[in-house]
Amino acid sequence: VETGRRTRHEHEIEFSRIVAFSDGVFAIAITLLVLQIEVPQGIGSHGDLADALLDQSGDLFAYAISFAVIGRFWYSHHRFFGEIRGFNAWLIALNLTYLGCMVLIPFSSEVLGEYGDRSAAVVLYAANLAIVTLLAAALTTYAVRAGLTTPGLDEEIGAGRDGTLYAAGVFVASIPVALVAPGVAPFTWLALFLDPTGRIRARRARR
Amino acid sequence: VETGRRTRHEHEIEFSRIVAFSDGVFAIAITLLVLQIEVPQGIGSHGDLADALLDQSGDLFAYAISFAVIGRFWYSHHRFFGEIRGFNAWLIALNLTYLGCMVLIPFSSEVLGEYGDRSAAVVLYAANLAIVTLLAAALTTYAVRAGLTTPGLDEEIGAGRDGTLYAAGVFVASIPVALVAPGVAPFTWLALFLDPTGRIRARRARR
Amino acid sequence: VETGRRTRHEHEIEFSRIVAFSDGVFAIAITLLVLQIEVPQGIGSHGDLADALLDQSGDLFAYAISFAVIGRFWYSHHRFFGEIRGFNAWLIALNLTYLGCMVLIPFSSEVLGEYGDRSAAVVLYAANLAIVTLLAAALTTYAVRAGLTTPGLDEEIGAGRDGTLYAAGVFVASIPVALVAPGVAPFTWLALFLDPTGRIRARRARR
Amino acid sequence: VETGRRTRHEHEIEFSRIVAFSDGVFAIAITLLVLQIEVPQGIGSHGDLADALLDQSGDLFAYAISFAVIGRFWYSHHRFFGEIRGFNAWLIALNLTYLGCMVLIPFSSEVLGEYGDRSAAVVLYAANLAIVTLLAAALTTYAVRAGLTTPGLDEEIGAGRDGTLYAAGVFVASIPVALVAPGVAPFTWLALFLDPTGRIRARRARR
Repeated sequence: VETGRRTRHEHEIEFSRIVAFSDGVFAIAITLLVLQIEVPQGIGSHGDLADALLDQSGDLFAYAISFAVIGRFWYSHHRFFGEIRGFNAWLIALNLTYLGCMVLIPFSSEVLGEYGDRSAAVVLYAANLAIVTLLAAALTTYAVRAGLTTPGLDEEIGAGRDGTLYAAGVFVASIPVALVAPGVAPFTWLALFLDPTGRIRARRARR
Repeated sequence: VETGRRTRHEHEIEFSRIVAFSDGVFAIAITLLVLQIEVPQGIGSHGDLADALLDQSGDLFAYAISFAVIGRFWYSHHRFFGEIRGFNAWLIALNLTYLGCMVLIPFSSEVLGEYGDRSAAVVLYAANLAIVTLLAAALTTYAVRAGLTTPGLDEEIGAGRDGTLYAAGVFVASIPVALVAPGVAPFTWLALFLDPTGRIRARRARR
Repeated sequence: VETGRRTRHEHEIEFSRIVAFSDGVFAIAITLLVLQIEVPQGIGSHGDLADALLDQSGDLFAYAISFAVIGRFWYSHHRFFGEIRGFNAWLIALNLTYLGCMVLIPFSSEVLGEYGDRSAAVVLYAANLAIVTLLAAALTTYAVRAGLTTPGLDEEIGAGRDGTLYAAGVFVASIPVALVAPGVAPFTWLALFLDPTGRIRARRARR
Repeated sequence: VETGRRTRHEHEIEFSRIVAFSDGVFAIAITLLVLQIEVPQGIGSHGDLADALLDQSGDLFAYAISFAVIGRFWYSHHRFFGEIRGFNAWLIALNLTYLGCMVLIPFSSEVLGEYGDRSAAVVLYAANLAIVTLLAAALTTYAVRAGLTTPGLDEEIGAGRDGTLYAAGVFVASIPVALVAPGVAPFTWLALFLDPTGRIRARRARR
């Protein structure tokens, strides 16, 4: 594997193919989520379709969460690649590994929609999100160290990475909760909204 | 979430990623519609395949309507983003929410194809289209208020929004009809072709 | 529907979105073809997987034909849009209609793979290809008449349309054959390679 | 089929459509891999979901291998098209044939995940990868001979082709192994990491 650094400027088309391929994978993964919502089958003329559709509310809930999650990952990826100025084979390999784990979300999501009250389903989902988040942090860290990002943005990119690591922490911490009380674990994910990393950074900067 | 306005001109690649991602989601959603048309299974050598295929005419009808509907939404989205000059985190979040509801159409469409004579199926479909249409109106309204659109096009964009709201009204009004007479409701959607908002605007402008 | 002509030059991004959306739909439709090849299920430890896989040769044959067909349609679409200089709402609507019928090919192809020896399956497939081909001819004819193509290329575009109409003729002519002898009809499609329209044009030009 | 050489420079949009279409097909094929991982069905409240998920480890293993394989193919395609300076109808036809065989990987992969201990499954997978690799070598060879690549890069492109042919050799050689010992064959693929073609070229160049 040749790992020489190529600049985005000189290899515009190759660079935009990486981004376009990633966008394609994101777009397909997010759209495949709809396939997990089952169409009720074999309801006779006296059966109640409305009830059968309401029974799919678990599927719909998992769909909504996963759509938001993949959308959020896409947005971060989009911001991150907006600051990338060069690329090499390692960045591409890390990006593919990241995408490979992200693409598993429709599967984990379908398991969650089907068996949301079981520990194994919630652990699987939390572990999947934790791995994707950790790979996103690894991607950022590698890009900064290898000098592939816009100079002078280290602070902004570092802030992004702090937030990513906090999110990974929330998902990892929810795994033991899910083993004991699977119904409670999804609520611990609400801690994502409490992300204190911005305030901590700001306080540190003021000193 | 950082919400600073970025111009399309300065962040061309990031802007085109939003558009490319949206196009990808539209293209996949519209193509997934074909999966709802069931291939007749297990027809022995004496069974009638032609009859079995004709039995799928409900599926094919739902496919044709939904292809036209998603195609129309894509066209409006395409026109709308053609007039966008800047973007921020809110616009992206609204756009993702819009796409998240649009991606449900293949599901609603499959339910409609399977159970077109039931109130619940028609209500689900009408509600889905109403929500997507209302989110399109919200997206337009937000973009104009936040100054993200080309200056001087307020009249044109306002006309587009009037049409969108009229369409939302047609879908909402068809829901009570569907509860009483599910077979009649799809015909009320033909009112979409009577869209009077253009004439009303023109008359108001003449005064 | 506003039908004013917009030039490709002035609305580069909007134009490339039409092309990108079409490419996305082509790419998804061609890739969905793989879903029609069934993975043999429930073969116990003594069953013969090799035999079961060879039983899928009908599916594989239909896959290969349909991949070539959609690939060929994509190539013509790609050539045609390479000569387009302007677009309007009608061109977009015709293009969407064309795509809507093209996206049905994975369905027709699956029916053909499953029931290749039945008249209904072969008629469905031939009819689907005939409709797509006729819509391609309509798209070309409309674009030339509305002045949306590069000036001076009328001869080249006319030649392309002749070939398209010849292909449509082959598919339409194979429908009565399929009704009598479904196993023979696919061989009549080989007449596509005998396309005489180029030679006829050349002879007419020499006069 | 018109085969006149067109340059990338003069037909930028057409060239980028070929690349975009290929990227779309790669992105969809790699994402469809997730559909092969089966969601355990019908596990009652006393059944063990964790066990059922662990039973899918064969599926997950096949998913990981195939994601890496398609990702690697995409990367090579991306590098190769980065060096292309012109294109003609033959290049497009070869590229479509290559994509048509690559798109079969999700199918072969699903068979491998389901029946990884059977000769037929391993032979199918190895044969699929061998064919794709040989077509990649054919694509490279044709492009160089037809003068479609950047001048002066013959050495680099030749090195790439050597590696591709070595990979094809590994897959072909694993087929007889799979016939005798299906469980052993996947380990022979590790020989891909021993690729000696770079060293052989370097030694030859030093003479």
